[in-house]
Amino acid sequence: MKVIIINGPNLNLLEYRNIDVYGDVSFEDYYLILKSTFTTITLDYYQSNIEGELINKLQEASTYDYIILNAGGYTHTSVAIADCVEAIKVPIIEVHISNIYSRDEFRRKSLISLYCLGCIVGFGLNSYKLALEHIISK
Amino acid sequence: MKVIIINGPNLNLLEYRNIDVYGDVSFEDYYLILKSTFTTITLDYYQSNIEGELINKLQEASTYDYIILNAGGYTHTSVAIADCVEAIKVPIIEVHISNIYSRDEFRRKSLISLYCLGCIVGFGLNSYKLALEHIISK
Amino acid sequence: MKVIIINGPNLNLLEYRNIDVYGDVSFEDYYLILKSTFTTITLDYYQSNIEGELINKLQEASTYDYIILNAGGYTHTSVAIADCVEAIKVPIIEVHISNIYSRDEFRRKSLISLYCLGCIVGFGLNSYKLALEHIISK
Amino acid sequence: MKVIIINGPNLNLLEYRNIDVYGDVSFEDYYLILKSTFTTITLDYYQSNIEGELINKLQEASTYDYIILNAGGYTHTSVAIADCVEAIKVPIIEVHISNIYSRDEFRRKSLISLYCLGCIVGFGLNSYKLALEHIISK
Amino acid sequence: MKVIIINGPNLNLLEYRNIDVYGDVSFEDYYLILKSTFTTITLDYYQSNIEGELINKLQEASTYDYIILNAGGYTHTSVAIADCVEAIKVPIIEVHISNIYSRDEFRRKSLISLYCLGCIVGFGLNSYKLALEHIISK
Amino acid sequence: MKVIIINGPNLNLLEYRNIDVYGDVSFEDYYLILKSTFTTITLDYYQSNIEGELINKLQEASTYDYIILNAGGYTHTSVAIADCVEAIKVPIIEVHISNIYSRDEFRRKSLISLYCLGCIVGFGLNSYKLALEHIISK
Amino acid sequence: MKVIIINGPNLNLLEYRNIDVYGDVSFEDYYLILKSTFTTITLDYYQSNIEGELINKLQEASTYDYIILNAGGYTHTSVAIADCVEAIKVPIIEVHISNIYSRDEFRRKSLISLYCLGCIVGFGLNSYKLALEHIISK
Amino acid sequence: MKVIIINGPNLNLLEYRNIDVYGDVSFEDYYLILKSTFTTITLDYYQSNIEGELINKLQEASTYDYIILNAGGYTHTSVAIADCVEAIKVPIIEVHISNIYSRDEFRRKSLISLYCLGCIVGFGLNSYKLALEHIISK
Amino acid sequence: MKVIIINGPNLNLLEYRNIDVYGDVSFEDYYLILKSTFTTITLDYYQSNIEGELINKLQEASTYDYIILNAGGYTHTSVAIADCVEAIKVPIIEVHISNIYSRDEFRRKSLISLYCLGCIVGFGLNSYKLALEHIISK
Amino acid sequence: MKVIIINGPNLNLLEYRNIDVYGDVSFEDYYLILKSTFTTITLDYYQSNIEGELINKLQEASTYDYIILNAGGYTHTSVAIADCVEAIKVPIIEVHISNIYSRDEFRRKSLISLYCLGCIVGFGLNSYKLALEHIISK
Amino acid sequence: MKVIIINGPNLNLLEYRNIDVYGDVSFEDYYLILKSTFTTITLDYYQSNIEGELINKLQEASTYDYIILNAGGYTHTSVAIADCVEAIKVPIIEVHISNIYSRDEFRRKSLISLYCLGCIVGFGLNSYKLALEHIISK
Amino acid sequence: MKVIIINGPNLNLLEYRNIDVYGDVSFEDYYLILKSTFTTITLDYYQSNIEGELINKLQEASTYDYIILNAGGYTHTSVAIADCVEAIKVPIIEVHISNIYSRDEFRRKSLISLYCLGCIVGFGLNSYKLALEHIISK
Repeated sequence: MKVIIINGPNLNLLEYRNIDVYGDVSFEDYYLILKSTFTTITLDYYQSNIEGELINKLQEASTYDYIILNAGGYTHTSVAIADCVEAIKVPIIEVHISNIYSRDEFRRKSLISLYCLGCIVGFGLNSYKLALEHIISK
Repeated sequence: MKVIIINGPNLNLLEYRNIDVYGDVSFEDYYLILKSTFTTITLDYYQSNIEGELINKLQEASTYDYIILNAGGYTHTSVAIADCVEAIKVPIIEVHISNIYSRDEFRRKSLISLYCLGCIVGFGLNSYKLALEHIISK
Repeated sequence: MKVIIINGPNLNLLEYRNIDVYGDVSFEDYYLILKSTFTTITLDYYQSNIEGELINKLQEASTYDYIILNAGGYTHTSVAIADCVEAIKVPIIEVHISNIYSRDEFRRKSLISLYCLGCIVGFGLNSYKLALEHIISK
Repeated sequence: MKVIIINGPNLNLLEYRNIDVYGDVSFEDYYLILKSTFTTITLDYYQSNIEGELINKLQEASTYDYIILNAGGYTHTSVAIADCVEAIKVPIIEVHISNIYSRDEFRRKSLISLYCLGCIVGFGLNSYKLALEHIISK
Repeated sequence: MKVIIINGPNLNLLEYRNIDVYGDVSFEDYYLILKSTFTTITLDYYQSNIEGELINKLQEASTYDYIILNAGGYTHTSVAIADCVEAIKVPIIEVHISNIYSRDEFRRKSLISLYCLGCIVGFGLNSYKLALEHIISK
Repeated sequence: MKVIIINGPNLNLLEYRNIDVYGDVSFEDYYLILKSTFTTITLDYYQSNIEGELINKLQEASTYDYIILNAGGYTHTSVAIADCVEAIKVPIIEVHISNIYSRDEFRRKSLISLYCLGCIVGFGLNSYKLALEHIISK
Repeated sequence: MKVIIINGPNLNLLEYRNIDVYGDVSFEDYYLILKSTFTTITLDYYQSNIEGELINKLQEASTYDYIILNAGGYTHTSVAIADCVEAIKVPIIEVHISNIYSRDEFRRKSLISLYCLGCIVGFGLNSYKLALEHIISK
Repeated sequence: MKVIIINGPNLNLLEYRNIDVYGDVSFEDYYLILKSTFTTITLDYYQSNIEGELINKLQEASTYDYIILNAGGYTHTSVAIADCVEAIKVPIIEVHISNIYSRDEFRRKSLISLYCLGCIVGFGLNSYKLALEHIISK
Repeated sequence: MKVIIINGPNLNLLEYRNIDVYGDVSFEDYYLILKSTFTTITLDYYQSNIEGELINKLQEASTYDYIILNAGGYTHTSVAIADCVEAIKVPIIEVHISNIYSRDEFRRKSLISLYCLGCIVGFGLNSYKLALEHIISK
Repeated sequence: MKVIIINGPNLNLLEYRNIDVYGDVSFEDYYLILKSTFTTITLDYYQSNIEGELINKLQEASTYDYIILNAGGYTHTSVAIADCVEAIKVPIIEVHISNIYSRDEFRRKSLISLYCLGCIVGFGLNSYKLALEHIISK
Repeated sequence: MKVIIINGPNLNLLEYRNIDVYGDVSFEDYYLILKSTFTTITLDYYQSNIEGELINKLQEASTYDYIILNAGGYTHTSVAIADCVEAIKVPIIEVHISNIYSRDEFRRKSLISLYCLGCIVGFGLNSYKLALEHIISK
Repeated sequence: MKVIIINGPNLNLLEYRNIDVYGDVSFEDYYLILKSTFTTITLDYYQSNIEGELINKLQEASTYDYIILNAGGYTHTSVAIADCVEAIKVPIIEVHISNIYSRDEFRRKSLISLYCLGCIVGFGLNSYKLALEHIISK
């Protein structure tokens, strides 16, 4: 099984952001833990702050069985990423580290959810792990 | 570890509802599978169609380590359940079987999410299993 | 032919409410008139002020050919009843005694109409009789 | 008893519109059935696609005991017809063939309901028959 | 000086409408009074219930020095009349018999005001007289 | 007959404001013309930029037969002036120099109109004269 | 004089909720204090988390001179309770422990206030005492 | 190939309206140019200011292969024309002379677009020519 | 204990306003009753129709233990008074004579409540007495 | 004449997207057809998924006579592209393959239309051809 | 060069308000610092809590080269001040001490900005100094 | 002291945009003037039309003492840049050349202001100079 995690803007900054909300681990470190935990999955990782590069990567990801997508701030504004999620055939699981529903009003809606398989929101970095749990259970 | 699953209105009807969205298993059957899968967890289950009985049960659930809550149609309208979720000390994981974000507009917001630990949405009955995965990982 | 009339909150108070709008007959008396008028129909009647008990009764009503539903104040707020109306197979006719469209703004929309066969609104208690006329004409 | 049915725009097209929603009978044929069913009622019929001609006819209808009005697409937009319904003395029953509440958002409100005796919505052509049943029961 | 009064839907019903709001004089009678009061003005009068006929008349009115327009219920909904008022060169005074600002919410905005010289609202039939006073003072 | 004109904020600046909209006459000069035109009316005039002083004056104006009120910028925001207009017994005519309906969105609604006898809008300083014409015609 | 206090959802949890907002006394203890303070009043008390049971109790309360109602979370969502408050004859005083106007947006409106005698909001448990002060002053 | 151009209100006034926006040619002259340009198409033309007459003509146009529709001001308000466009079988191309999206807010939405094949907006009279280009390319 | 009652616009008019809503007592008379009832409180009174004078008085009131504030029409519109209420240290009780929640929509929200200790609404002049009851109970 | 087609996000995926809506031709193939059809036009083509790269290209396109722009998902959200379209001197024709007005609500408005010459929407790939037809007719 | 600083409601309270937001200096002290810093500017200062007095002062300020205006709470609600700012000829710089955009929703829009030269927001008392820096750089 | 100016989309086009609004100087030229004016500041400059590259640069700017940010069109739409501004530790001053509050509605709100130190808006290129004045005064 091949899976790619695609992270959007500012998720490369994880360990410098609000520690109460995001913890103090970098995503790169956490990614290594995930790889060693899910040994039956070929797990890749991509991060970009650029909306269109996320679209490029999503378009190229057709060889994967699943995509785990955390589009960060683009979650709430990007019709272009939503279009892409709708267009490609690979099933996508939307993931958020913090509980976006308990933050600012403009963060409470996701344009992307509409076209995703499902959403896992608010479990810290464990949100990614749960997405992988779902994938291996299939 | 003690966990209770609390299901709201119409979730007792599961196998009769839209099969594309909800599958054709009854929740009772699925509950037995969960119990036999997570043997280290003492797992209880409660269902009611009555908003206030869900509040009664949430209030009584102080002896549990976690609550898994699928408030069904009350998710979108009940300030009273949201108040209760805010008031009690037990951490609560919100769960939905279908992807509520891809359905009618009035189903796209949850009053309850605001006070929950996190949300797992759209993975069918597997949403409950992922919630338990999160709990045992703690 | 088996039909059940399900009445929601405050419809047990009928003869005490605004006489201009609701008349001064109790629903129980009117129900007897309906039974003696439509002798070819086995007609049952249920009333509750509790949202979830209305859902319980709707779920149990699968042996009826038609349901006539006046959800009272829940008409405008209950996603849970709307879910139930959508889930069950028995066709439902929505009925209102007063013209809900000529009253307060928040009474002018019905969440339930969306899933009903049709609506009869504003003919006083005669609204129920018209619903039965429709049923026997089938 | 004298009654007139007044139909608005596109209701002359009935048998060419969406057959699932409107059936395949022309209204003219159905009108003849109604006349032969309700022999104690002098029943007239008028149709126009022109908003102001509907107002003309409503103004001239003062000799009737009841008007049955299906204003079609003008239902949702015409303050002018609503003004007329409010101004004239003859009681008016609003009728719709399809369940307007389960269609597009902009079809879910009626400016006219406010001033009508009552509404019968969603029973196909039978909506007209129910309106007449109400009238003869008076 | 040539002036035409153009009245929209239901203004032909004046003496039959709510007497508190509209008085019990027919507009035709009042028109004769106006003609005899403003003898230096050639005063014409047109009424139609049909939106497009009002547009036709407005388009043909290019030989007049002023138009006095009471578009009735079309005031609040007709972009087509507003377009026409904007397109023609003759200055237009908007007039209403009742105080539209103290009635239903949907009657409180006028699409037509935007392109009129000015508005006179709420003085009963005297609103027309004031419009003519303004015209002769020019 | 005793009448008072009450002008609100910035109407003392008339001749310095946008000449296309307001002309280049000061209101004081125009007031003298009005006085000499309507010799049968005892005409007073008051202007203040202070919302509460306008309320003070409105409250003291109980000896007048009519008040002509141009509340300027307070027209669109002052519930307090609207309350006062509702409370006092003297009939009030609302007047605006420019066509407020063809300017910014926030200028298109008047909180005061609700309680006034009528409104005259957009005829330049002539709006005041028309108000007086209405008064002497009574 | 007979008075009943009717408390809605989660008010049985009082001493466990946010201590800054609600204090740390149980309502039952406070109720005893009220009884001993207002000895001339026959004071009863009822609490339920179930919306429809609150309606049941309100309907049965016709023998009381006043009802003091704190509908908790149903305050903001229940058309059914509002209908009941409108229907029954006993005057009702609405009471809230915390200042609902300084909390979340969705808590700032009350559907019930519309039909109540008056509201006392934000004085902690003392809100109930003030309601009784008002009653005995009558 | 048979095509009809149907023009709505005020499009007969073309040469008198804002020259910057609409040019100074009458539509009748332009229509002759179109006929002589597209000689393989039997091209008809109809204009009315009356909403219902446009519906009448649309209903009668079943013998055409295509309809080119510029509904003018009715574009933004007419559910009745939208219903008709949806009901008839002939494909319809929506056309506007000016760029409706760069004008007033209320002109930026079209109720009709929903049911049209496509829209051509803002190319002056050339919009009609492009519609015909599309038709002959089929 | 020192307390000041600060009344906003039109509350000096009390006995002339709607008698059903406000009674026919002047506030000055009622104030004397309050003084003689609460003899342990040094009670002052201030009224102004001018928003900024109310702010001046609120700022100067730092020597009082409590302020009872009825800001009248400024309740619904004044950010400046709300700022002042937030800035000063003296606790403030908001009071309204009529039930503002059962009147016009724009009267149903208070900008000031947000920063007050609590609100007493709808008990006629008795609202002030209840505020004082709360104060002496402290 | 020099023209450039600029395509935004996901338009490189054309042949893989919903075939009913977009057909099964790649844009690159279609572009070659256009080049061979319009031999008098020097036609260039650019595609990017990155919002800012589209802006870069629009800024560099000052040597072209026309730009044909399909901004894809950025159409509905990009103030930055709208700013650029407004700033540059080259006239721009907005083009969409599918009828954006018959899809989701959030796709029904275009921020870019405001500053374009005109829009061609819903004719499949033929939309581009019609834009070129317009250009060569100039 | 002559400049006047005009401060609105509650800015006289500066040192008593929230110290985190406003610091603990009185504006009068700060004003003296400004005067001694900008010796080439004749600097005046005016403060009032009364909306209309601010308008009076703005109207009288025609002899100044610049006005620095902090309208405090009136910023968000006063059409009358906005009208005045638009009417007078002296250029006005809007200044705020706190970052109004990071506070309550109703504080995030300014009616006055529309007509000002520019705005300086959020730099504490330094906002005034920056305004003067801009003025002397001219 | 190290400061970087980060400019967003279309600000490289400055001298080609609306000269009334933006002047006719290129930002590069102006930047040189700033450098020679503020010799005690190490001043850097970065411009990109790409949202994500602006985020990249903001993330890398941790060695600066201040950032001056003009996010251009992304100001109004970019949650991702707002997230970044919130996440990084360097204080940021938001700057706009034109008065964004006097332009289109959708330009009147800034998602970024929420997390900035302060905003300077509408002083042309001088806005940047004022930001630097603030920095050197610290």
